[in-house]
This record gives sequence, structure tokens and C-alpha cells, in this order.
Amino acid sequence: MTDPVQLTADLIRCPSVTPEEGGALVLLEDILSRAGFTCTRVDRGGVCNLFARWGDKGHARSFGFNGHTDVVPVGDEAAWTRPPFGAEIHDGILYGRGATDMKSGVAAFVAAAVDFVRDTPPDGAIVLTITGDEEGDAVDGTTALLDYMQAQDERMSVCLVGEPTCPNEMGEMMKIGRRGSMTAWFEVTGVQGHSAYPHRARNPLPALARLMDRLASHELDRGTDHFDASTLAVVTMDTGNAATNVIPAQCRGAVNIRFNELHTGASLSDWLRAQAADVTAEFGVQIDTRIKVSGESFLTPPGPLSDLVARAVEAETGRRPELSTTGGTSDARFIKDHCPVVEFGLVGRTMHQVDESAPVEQIRQLKAIYARILADYFA
Amino acid sequence: MTDPVQLTADLIRCPSVTPEEGGALVLLEDILSRAGFTCTRVDRGGVCNLFARWGDKGHARSFGFNGHTDVVPVGDEAAWTRPPFGAEIHDGILYGRGATDMKSGVAAFVAAAVDFVRDTPPDGAIVLTITGDEEGDAVDGTTALLDYMQAQDERMSVCLVGEPTCPNEMGEMMKIGRRGSMTAWFEVTGVQGHSAYPHRARNPLPALARLMDRLASHELDRGTDHFDASTLAVVTMDTGNAATNVIPAQCRGAVNIRFNELHTGASLSDWLRAQAADVTAEFGVQIDTRIKVSGESFLTPPGPLSDLVARAVEAETGRRPELSTTGGTSDARFIKDHCPVVEFGLVGRTMHQVDESAPVEQIRQLKAIYARILADYFA
Repeated sequence: MTDPVQLTADLIRCPSVTPEEGGALVLLEDILSRAGFTCTRVDRGGVCNLFARWGDKGHARSFGFNGHTDVVPVGDEAAWTRPPFGAEIHDGILYGRGATDMKSGVAAFVAAAVDFVRDTPPDGAIVLTITGDEEGDAVDGTTALLDYMQAQDERMSVCLVGEPTCPNEMGEMMKIGRRGSMTAWFEVTGVQGHSAYPHRARNPLPALARLMDRLASHELDRGTDHFDASTLAVVTMDTGNAATNVIPAQCRGAVNIRFNELHTGASLSDWLRAQAADVTAEFGVQIDTRIKVSGESFLTPPGPLSDLVARAVEAETGRRPELSTTGGTSDARFIKDHCPVVEFGLVGRTMHQVDESAPVEQIRQLKAIYARILADYFA
Repeated sequence: MTDPVQLTADLIRCPSVTPEEGGALVLLEDILSRAGFTCTRVDRGGVCNLFARWGDKGHARSFGFNGHTDVVPVGDEAAWTRPPFGAEIHDGILYGRGATDMKSGVAAFVAAAVDFVRDTPPDGAIVLTITGDEEGDAVDGTTALLDYMQAQDERMSVCLVGEPTCPNEMGEMMKIGRRGSMTAWFEVTGVQGHSAYPHRARNPLPALARLMDRLASHELDRGTDHFDASTLAVVTMDTGNAATNVIPAQCRGAVNIRFNELHTGASLSDWLRAQAADVTAEFGVQIDTRIKVSGESFLTPPGPLSDLVARAVEAETGRRPELSTTGGTSDARFIKDHCPVVEFGLVGRTMHQVDESAPVEQIRQLKAIYARILADYFA
């Protein structure tokens, strides 16, 4: 039996702060290779990633796990009461950066997979995609692994991401989707002038105010069966003009949108540009719009995969997990283009914080849940 | 005959950059005292001012002149082609800081008054109020002189301010009023939060956008017989939030209003505060409003005083001056509470600029106009 707590502790001792590999993927490759997994390092753009498969390539029943070994910086190290890379256990709690997000999740699915293929070799494949860049730009992380798989005709039939998903109690929530996220920056340019003669100037500020008021007032949707309503937040408006007798030539504003499956980054970009064009026409100003889509929304509607996971969670914890789409983005946003994907993992309360920690009992419980999922999937 | 060009040159050589006296008022007091004027220095708050009266105190026919000897800083002295305090004359043009704004105006009315009381002593009084702080805060300038007059039962029946009033050609414009000016600063406070969960925050930015849009869209009036429409210019909106995943707690905006006689600083302050209160209620934010009224509007409707001045201008220049209310504020905004007041002076094109200058012929013409006004008034 592979001990997921020991493996989590070993991973915590690898200082794999994004984008450093820190020895974490080397350690996992060693364990998985010895367990019969075909391992390939898929490094790209200075980022290290690990692809591992047990069983036949392209098998119609290929169960995927996804996770990351990189962690966020420790922050104020002096504020930690335990060494952030020490993996000390006190009163049944394992401390260290990555204890919940998500070296424990990776350790749990690796331990479950290794034991499973040894004890009950399935008729199918288990595919592990483990990245060293989820907390950073995420440009050469899971995306690189998926590109590699496509090029090599590797496949996952379904995928479970091991990110922390439970707000407070183990087992209370899993994710079947996430909202998309995007930011738009607007730079409004008019003609400078004297406050006393506004008709000789072209003031960009009322145009920006109108645009921001319209965007903020617009109801994007009222939510869907599985998603809350999409939201738009004006995050800044700036001018930097201290002279009250001067109408400035330029001002800037930005909005951040979190959107559900009724929208895409492209559809919202079109809408934002159309709104800016309306205001441009109304006020005779120029508006330069720059948009960055951080992630599209994804949804795996309730069905076989979510049932499979929810049943296993309930069997091990006694709690039927809520099927949620709340929270920020995760690498599931990339995987959803390849196969059905859901997320389940530990209680995330201490993630990214000082004294990040996880109860060892919950790490063992998580391995048991992942093991049960594999058993049920291949049954 | 007192030479107004020589007197302007002598005044330019006094470096009376606000709030420095620079010798200018001492020079004028000397000239006026010797001409039989009762002179009193009315200094207050570090500012020097000169009150001078010829004739009986409180006479029912008391003609007033108002002006200032302080000047704005020279700015980039290296950019001047003539010494800014040198008062050099080249090709009939007198160069120096204050050549148009408004040592020439003061010199012209002092020269006209001195000659007039010597040659044709009137049955009445001539009152000169000359301040050393019109270009600065103007708190202890003409206001101090008016306070002094009120305390001493001094009076002016009418008053002519000698500020430059002509845009391009000598004689083309006089001022019978000026718009008021005020600035309002709004600080909007909400509750900080994460962009992904706007319902848990209270975003101050849409509230500021709504307020600024409403204020900028509102038609204050359509102008009056003598005034252009009042204007409101949004001059800045600022937040300083670079984090697109953060809804900031606070943002700021400011507007500048130029208003005609349909409004007062108080009536507009009430309106601004009511608009802020509406937005406060709509958005559940807090808005702190700070207002500074720089000057109330003033209007001396066309009548005996403007006729008197316009006739004299036409007689000397061949141009019937337009009765205008355009431009920024002047000390006429204080005088209007005491007696009818109008403004007439030189072409102001070079005021506040490098190489400020005035044609000597126009300075002589200005003295002749002021002399004719005195003669007609006391005829």
C-alpha cells in the first residue's frame, strides 16, 4: 500500500515554487515508472511536465487524472510557524506549502493508481497529466501536455482534476464546471482643452463614465441550471489630471468579467467592442479596447462522470457532494476541449496561505475516494 | 501730461510677482499723493494693497478704477527674448511681465486720473483700488480693499476694472459680466472585494460613473441674453487599482462648473449634493463631496455705465465694443456686490506668456479712453 501522506510529505520537501521543478516530477516519474507506467517528460518553455500512462495507448476506457506539483511562493516566511518546505506533522495535521494545493491531491491519485494497477490490473488505461505550471502563466503547463497527447494520439476518456474543491468539510463539494474569466481595458482619447471652454475640447471622461455605467448596468444573464449569473466588475477608472481648469485628452478604465456557458470570450469581446463603438459614435472620441481572455467557461453536465465521483465521495465520507461551478479558473478549462472533466479534492481553506496544511486523515480519505472511483470505473 | 508708457515701464521694472509688492505700490502711492490723492496702504495677510481717493469721501458721484500690480511668474526665463523686468521698447512694442496684464492698465488709469484732477477738478470723487494679489489666492487683495472701504464708509458709485478685455483688436470688446467658477470633488467609498464575487463587495466605480454621466449630461441652462450657457466639465476620475481581480474600496472624481447669473455657487452646490445623494441611495455607497466656489457670476446689465465706456472706446478707437461676459474670473466678481462694475482694457493676447508685450500706442490710447470716460462721467 502506497502511503499518500508520506508521498505528500516527500513532495512538499521539493521546493517547486512556480516554475521550478524542484525535484517533484523526478520523484513521481521514479515511482510511476517502477509501477509500470510509461512516463514522458513534456517540458516546454522552461516548464516541466510529466505524462504517465498505464495500459494501452488510446484504449477506449482511459481514466485520466490531472494535477500540478508547482506551488505559490511562501510569502512572508517569518509568519509561518512551521517550515514551509518541512512537511512537519503536528496533531495529525501535515504542514507545508502545497499541503492542500495540491501536492496532496497528486500524491493521492498517484498512490491510488499505483496500488490499483498492481492489485487489480484493469482492462483499460490510466493516464496521469501532472504539470509544473498551474499557478503561473499556465501557458506551457497542462496545455503542453494536451498538445503532446494530441500529437501522440494519446487519449483520456474522462478526466478528474485533483484540485481542492471542498469549502469546509471533506466531501461536501465537487466542481462540474467553472466560469470563464476575462479583462477588458479601454483607453478613451479626446481633445484636451480649458475647463471654461468645453465646446472647444472633446472630453473623454463623460464617454468613459457612460461606457462604464452601461457595462456595469447590463444584465449579462440570470444564471443557468448549473451556473450563477455572469458578473461584470468595473475595476478601475483613471485619469491623473490634477488641474481642475484642464479637460484632459485621455482617460482609462477596465472591467473584469466572469461568465458562464451562455457566453464565450469571443462573444463577450464582440459585445464589449460594440458598446465601445456606440460610445465612440455618441461622444466623438476614440476608444482603444484591449481584451485578455484568461479562460473560457466549462461545464460537464451532470451525468456518468459526476455520478461516478459523487457516489465514491458519498461512500467514503457519508456526504453527497454538491455539483458546483463556483470559484476561479483551473486547468479543467483546457481539458474540457478533450474529454468530460470534473474536479474533486481536499478542503481548500488554507491554500495560498501561511501555514498551509491538511489533516493526514483527509489525505488518506482522498486516496480512498480516488481508488474507489478507479474501481467503479473499470468494474 | 503724465506718460502712461513711462509709468508702465517703471512698474514693469518693479518685480512684483505675486504676492511680492516689488516697489510697484510704493511708486504709485508717491505719484498719487503728490497729485492730491489721499492714499492708504491696506495690507492684509502678507498682501499689499493701495487705496487712493481724490475728492470728498462718500461723494454721490464717485468714479472707481480697479486694477492689480502683481504679475504671474516669468516661467522659463531663458525662453524670453527680452528681459521680463527690463521694460525694453522695440519697434513701438513695450516688453515685460505685466505689459498687458495689467501694469499698463493701472498706469493708464493713474495717468488719466492724475491729469484729470489737475486740469479739470471735478465735482465728485475718483477712487482707485489697486491690489497686489489678483493673480494669487485673491483672498486678501481687492476683498481687503472693499472691506476697508465698507469699514471707513468709503464708496464708489461705479467701477471700471482695467483688465485686458480685447481678444485681437484694440477696442473690440468690453466685459459687463463674468461667469462664476466652482469645482466639486467627489470621493466614493464602497466595500472592497474580489472581482469574481461582486455581490460580496460594493463597487464604488459604477456609482462614480453614473454620477459623472448624469452631471455631464445635464443641461444647466441654454444661456441668457448676456451669457453663454453654463458649462460643466468632468476633469478627472481616479482609482489607482492595478489588480484586475480586485474591486477597489474607493475612487474619486471632480467637475469644474462655469455658470451664468441663473445660478449661484450655493444653488449649484445644492444641486451637486442632491445628485450625489441620489447616487448614494441607488448604489448603497458613501460619497464625500467637497466644493470650492472660486467666484460667483456677475452681470452689470447694459445701461449708463456700459454706455459711458462704450462711447469713449468708440470715440478713441472707432470701434463699438462688444458687451461680453466671456473669459475667466476677475476681481469684478467682488466689486459687483458694492456697485455697478464693467471691465475694459488692452488686447490680452500675450498675457501670462513669454515675451508679454503691449504696443506703446495702445497704452496711450487706453489712457485717452479712460480720460474721456472721466470727462464724460463728470460732465
